[in-house]
Amino acid sequence: MSHRKVAELPVRIAGLGWYLPARRVTNGELEQRIGIAPGWIARVSGVQERRYVDNETTVGMATAAARMALDAAGIPAGALDAIVGASAGPEQAIPCTAALVQRTLGAPEGNSACFDVNATCLSFLFALQTAAHLVSAGVYRTMLIFSSEIGSRSLDPEERESAVLFGDAAAAAVVTRASTAEPGTFWHARFGTWSSGADLAQVQGGGTLHHPNDPATTHGMNLFHMRGPEIFKQAGRLIGPFLDDFFAELHWERGEVDAVVPHQASRHAVELLTRRLGFRDNQMVVNLPERGNCISASIPLGLAEAVGRGRIRRGDRVLLVGSGAGLTLGAVALTY
Amino acid sequence: MSHRKVAELPVRIAGLGWYLPARRVTNGELEQRIGIAPGWIARVSGVQERRYVDNETTVGMATAAARMALDAAGIPAGALDAIVGASAGPEQAIPCTAALVQRTLGAPEGNSACFDVNATCLSFLFALQTAAHLVSAGVYRTMLIFSSEIGSRSLDPEERESAVLFGDAAAAAVVTRASTAEPGTFWHARFGTWSSGADLAQVQGGGTLHHPNDPATTHGMNLFHMRGPEIFKQAGRLIGPFLDDFFAELHWERGEVDAVVPHQASRHAVELLTRRLGFRDNQMVVNLPERGNCISASIPLGLAEAVGRGRIRRGDRVLLVGSGAGLTLGAVALTY
Repeated sequence: MSHRKVAELPVRIAGLGWYLPARRVTNGELEQRIGIAPGWIARVSGVQERRYVDNETTVGMATAAARMALDAAGIPAGALDAIVGASAGPEQAIPCTAALVQRTLGAPEGNSACFDVNATCLSFLFALQTAAHLVSAGVYRTMLIFSSEIGSRSLDPEERESAVLFGDAAAAAVVTRASTAEPGTFWHARFGTWSSGADLAQVQGGGTLHHPNDPATTHGMNLFHMRGPEIFKQAGRLIGPFLDDFFAELHWERGEVDAVVPHQASRHAVELLTRRLGFRDNQMVVNLPERGNCISASIPLGLAEAVGRGRIRRGDRVLLVGSGAGLTLGAVALTY
Repeated sequence: MSHRKVAELPVRIAGLGWYLPARRVTNGELEQRIGIAPGWIARVSGVQERRYVDNETTVGMATAAARMALDAAGIPAGALDAIVGASAGPEQAIPCTAALVQRTLGAPEGNSACFDVNATCLSFLFALQTAAHLVSAGVYRTMLIFSSEIGSRSLDPEERESAVLFGDAAAAAVVTRASTAEPGTFWHARFGTWSSGADLAQVQGGGTLHHPNDPATTHGMNLFHMRGPEIFKQAGRLIGPFLDDFFAELHWERGEVDAVVPHQASRHAVELLTRRLGFRDNQMVVNLPERGNCISASIPLGLAEAVGRGRIRRGDRVLLVGSGAGLTLGAVALTY
């Protein structure tokens, strides 16, 4: 991998928000339903509970998270000039989820451009990079990014490792230009895809390959399947050199990072960052035990909740980092 | 709508490519199959024939188009540092289609970042804007954008107007930094979404709202439905002021545009640009009669074929313009 230019853009996250479905699903409930020995889930996955939707929708959760982010930023929905959906799963195949959120949010028509960005679990990071460059260039002044996921409907109870891991959630961020009065910096982003791992985490259905109406499309094709140990092995081998390059480009030391918000892929994935990759436990923002892996919403939810409880404050150096289906690695450095 | 800053980025489309399925579907075949009077399709839609896939896949078509674009650019796949899928329909729900194309293209692992951008028919324009800013900022040097669509599997024969309109195709573009030796400019992009029209063109299924495995999800929910006259009415009312703003920002006169490549939404949509919006017939690039509406591939296919036959040449001022589900309007001005 060649070294890449650091962006250092005068861009800030002006506000963050999130939404969690009311329904808590405990390990006890899942263990009984799936037929797993008590204690197995916590031991293997590190998840204690997660939320599942009842009647909530992708768009409804996104809208609630967006309202909270706009409130936190002190910015009305009418000021948005772009809305970016950054989720692995859309509300419906057409139109893009961002357009549906413009409608439910009551954002004035014609004032905002709506599109979706999808890189599964890293969708938010790709969208944040895109937003940072578009805001910095003056294309848009106020962009909303949301990640809203209902993974619970696509879980296969026969694949225990993934069935117990995921939770539903939404999170949102408002991105604006930074100023002397309202500082913030988008320092750097780096992504790489290793597609030999493309089959390690997948939903084969839901697209043109196995159309929902094709009689040959099976129930199982529409469910998520992952080969967890192989993902962990591949990602674990790649993430070290990837982060070394990232920090070399960035000219930061790992110890200077105030908060690392990793994709809450699994307990092992989060532990890897501290046990082998040079971060301290007290740098890590971890919500896996209470939230599970919330797919694309995982990283912005971790960030938003950490800001909400004062763990991350204005001026802090923050690293967002994770792996996603693809297999793709991604990292973003910013001053909140 | 407020006026927006013109980008004027030193970015060029270094090469273009496309892929068309071998199978031609004539109006005669469709009229017989669906039970429509001979001549109705050409009269109402303006389409004479379209291509449908047999065994081709979204990824396979994208890969063929990408290879042609790389060849045209004289750039090896190994030089790509980002691959952007810009289609309305993915190959499968997870991972993103771009990662799958990295694999089939044989682009070296880890060297490119893969993600998808989706704004239905305008996906290519949003991806082009994103790529232009990322390349201009030095984040990536060589980006591949592809749009690959198999709409034919989601058509409802009972909705004649849309069933006869769409065709399958893929197109791709390689985007690089321009130089004195290899000039090119990405002048401006403008988008706006009017989500009161979100239900006018939709596939209700394919997402979390009507999951493929939900017993309540019907066959019809997984098919495309549009209210064509209402879309035309709404888009027709909005596109005039939208283009007026766009040209005011751009400081171009309509007459200075060498080629207008519109989304081939329908005969009426294409005619609107000449009959009411101030362009001349000889400025228009029209492939609707032979290709049909190829969803996101429509605009890059029109551009690629026009370059291929010498209709658009280096140094030409090109306008890419269209409407998509959302309802979203978009326009991009570039010097090819």
